[in-house]
Amino acid sequence: MTALATPSATSAGVPAPAGVRPGAFGNATHLVCRACGEKSSLGPFYACLECFGPLEVGYDFPTITRAQLEAGPKSIWRYAPLLPVPADIATFRSTDPGYTRLLDAANLAADLGLRKLWVKDDSGNPTHSFKDRVVAVALSAARELGLHVLACPSTGNLANAVAAAAARAGIKSVVFVPENLEHQKIIASAVYDTTLIAVQGSYDDVNKLASEIAAEEEGWAFVNVNVRPYYSEGSKTLAYEIAEQLGWRIPDQVVIPVASGSQLTKIDKGFAELVTLGLVEDKPWKIYGAQATGCSPISQAYRADLDFVPPVKPDTIAKSLAIGNPADGPYVLDVVRRTGGLIADVDDETVVQNIQRLARTEGVFAETAGGVTVGVTAKLIADGVLDPDAETVVINSGDGLKTLDAVSGRVGPKTTIPPRYDAFTDFWKGLDR
Amino acid sequence: MTALATPSATSAGVPAPAGVRPGAFGNATHLVCRACGEKSSLGPFYACLECFGPLEVGYDFPTITRAQLEAGPKSIWRYAPLLPVPADIATFRSTDPGYTRLLDAANLAADLGLRKLWVKDDSGNPTHSFKDRVVAVALSAARELGLHVLACPSTGNLANAVAAAAARAGIKSVVFVPENLEHQKIIASAVYDTTLIAVQGSYDDVNKLASEIAAEEEGWAFVNVNVRPYYSEGSKTLAYEIAEQLGWRIPDQVVIPVASGSQLTKIDKGFAELVTLGLVEDKPWKIYGAQATGCSPISQAYRADLDFVPPVKPDTIAKSLAIGNPADGPYVLDVVRRTGGLIADVDDETVVQNIQRLARTEGVFAETAGGVTVGVTAKLIADGVLDPDAETVVINSGDGLKTLDAVSGRVGPKTTIPPRYDAFTDFWKGLDR
Ligand SMILES: Cc1ncc(COP(=O)(O)O)c(C=O)c1O
Ligand SMILES: Cc1ncc(COP(=O)(O)O)c(C=O)c1O
Ligand SMILES: [Zn+2]
Ligand SMILES: [Zn+2]
Repeated sequence: MTALATPSATSAGVPAPAGVRPGAFGNATHLVCRACGEKSSLGPFYACLECFGPLEVGYDFPTITRAQLEAGPKSIWRYAPLLPVPADIATFRSTDPGYTRLLDAANLAADLGLRKLWVKDDSGNPTHSFKDRVVAVALSAARELGLHVLACPSTGNLANAVAAAAARAGIKSVVFVPENLEHQKIIASAVYDTTLIAVQGSYDDVNKLASEIAAEEEGWAFVNVNVRPYYSEGSKTLAYEIAEQLGWRIPDQVVIPVASGSQLTKIDKGFAELVTLGLVEDKPWKIYGAQATGCSPISQAYRADLDFVPPVKPDTIAKSLAIGNPADGPYVLDVVRRTGGLIADVDDETVVQNIQRLARTEGVFAETAGGVTVGVTAKLIADGVLDPDAETVVINSGDGLKTLDAVSGRVGPKTTIPPRYDAFTDFWKGLDR
Repeated sequence: MTALATPSATSAGVPAPAGVRPGAFGNATHLVCRACGEKSSLGPFYACLECFGPLEVGYDFPTITRAQLEAGPKSIWRYAPLLPVPADIATFRSTDPGYTRLLDAANLAADLGLRKLWVKDDSGNPTHSFKDRVVAVALSAARELGLHVLACPSTGNLANAVAAAAARAGIKSVVFVPENLEHQKIIASAVYDTTLIAVQGSYDDVNKLASEIAAEEEGWAFVNVNVRPYYSEGSKTLAYEIAEQLGWRIPDQVVIPVASGSQLTKIDKGFAELVTLGLVEDKPWKIYGAQATGCSPISQAYRADLDFVPPVKPDTIAKSLAIGNPADGPYVLDVVRRTGGLIADVDDETVVQNIQRLARTEGVFAETAGGVTVGVTAKLIADGVLDPDAETVVINSGDGLKTLDAVSGRVGPKTTIPPRYDAFTDFWKGLDR
């Protein structure tokens, strides 16, 4: 699966694999190793043949204008010229994710003591997490590369997104999850009639198994393994949307949940591309990462001043972020240090309190990952790290309906009454308001 | 609460209540009785003083162009000129619902034997049901009328939407639900720190209690009771969006879930307004209603050729549709008969199968109400009622994550394996594909 195919020159001078139609990857021209810079052709490749470093997509962008992007569909496909997808991508069956709300979060800002705060609310995506973005791009790559099974190891949200996207695209899917996953995420994958395989182990065990299968099975697109370079580009659309929704501006600081670290590094890449293309004015931005203390390998590595990430054994209610051996760990450290941000963590109790805080102040019901992100934001303000006067964006990447157990012991009816007016008034008069 | 306030002429010549700012209701000019046609002023009124019939909002529309609407925000507020809301509505804190996906449902169409089918997917709304639309308009009316508590009786989704909208707007909310509601809908209301009151009874009992409270308490906006005329206008945006997303065209037939019947009648009203305003070409459309057999009072009345709706005692898994005494029952009968459609019902087993059918074919996980709507669509095709060659739209008004129990006994992992490649291949080889 990793052998380079017969050459046919691309604009970057790297041979493209045989059988791939012209324009299959839009303005993308090659893959490039994030570790050693070695280039290779576009194909189902994810590890550098020189150094085994992770590959990422490289482009040769033409002139791209704001007007051109604004005229596109109200989904991530408006940014097709910036993604490794064909120009006619919107004509294929996908879940058409993205273009979610950027909420002016004035109540939460007041509560936290921030001057200006926005919540990028990705719970509005088709399967209610940001994973629909990355899967849509991976699906396109799989199709263009002639792969016929869409697969993934997942902490839950990715499984939902892969199963839904495959159903809609009419292709087979196989998703692997740790058997102790939230009931909601199990059902909300299985309902799409995917082949859902529960694995007795942690996500990291599941991920290792997926890599073995990816190396052996022909024609499988493990979205976050062998087509990972394409997949991860999908997260750049969060940066594009934030900038466009702010009127083509980059905010001062962004707080981002971190599991493998893909989303965080790609939001940074997205901003950088907008600057390079002249679509926004250049300015500094700071990237902050958020983890749950019970699975905080990158945060720990940051505090220990390391430039690599020793794996940990996860134990947290934030299961969607429970990756103990994060693939993009060192690149997360790079980004937060280079931009002047950092990565921090909060405990599970804080996670739950901040799910409630976001719901109470903004009417947004986040999953545990959102509690992590808001919780870390609050902590960084309290610690005097985050600038309260700087314009801040917090990413809400998932949905509270998928992690109900986190709050269901704490909230509920204030009373149960018979259907009589006097029963209501008795309760209402006694209420401490 | 129902007394008419001091006069001040409006363009329709009906006195407006004192203390309401000019333009508070946009192009709306009065309320009008759906039964006897008597006009009254805009205010917190919902029943005709002459005949107790339900009031609805009347307008004096200026010229409105497609370009003007298209230039608006990507939410229901793009249609502000067609709603009883002020022109500056987008500057107020709301959940900014709407502008959800209209999915080209080719797989489901093939499965059902339809030529052209679209799914209007309202699970993408902020609290994942169409109720965010109606609540956003009711919230605006409450604010403009100086009401300070947002309240509702609810079958679940409305409670979620009211609690979230009130949290975001920073006003108090009180929501009343039957105590046997789905766990998901209870938690997804309570998390917003609303005053959630569980009532020992059916929705119809809860609704009756709410009417009593609305009549007694000062300053409460029961969104679907005393500000119902404004509330229900929110559902017109489903019609506007469908037409705009089809390129300013009205489809041939629409299948709509029915509880109180508000949504169905307002989708019809929305199409009619677009025609009157010259925003779409005039053409016939047929409106079909969908109920669960276990609560099908309007469908039964339709079959019995009645023009009134005898109440029933609900018993169905489609709890969001479980209204035994539907407020808009006779108007639903009117609309389906006038447009050449009808209203039908399917049993709970069919509901579950059609949740799975929609998920499997389109990657959309609907709640029980969606299973009802797709199920009735299938039944009407099988019965030769629905024209398979006519362009059809099905409304998906809610989200499967809120009614997990409907499917959780039927779907799940296909296997559980240890994290070893051989364990995977053993399963995979044995799989019947
Ligand atoms: C809701 C949610 N947020 C954030 C993440 C983190 O994503 P990444 O692996 O790109 O760091 C995940 C990963 O599963 C997730 O499910
Ligand atoms: C998901 C869903 N669909 C449809 C309806 C029906 O709405 P209406 O009362 O306007 O008929 C409801 C009402 O609660 C609902 O929750
Ligand atoms: Zn390398
Ligand atoms: Zn009347």
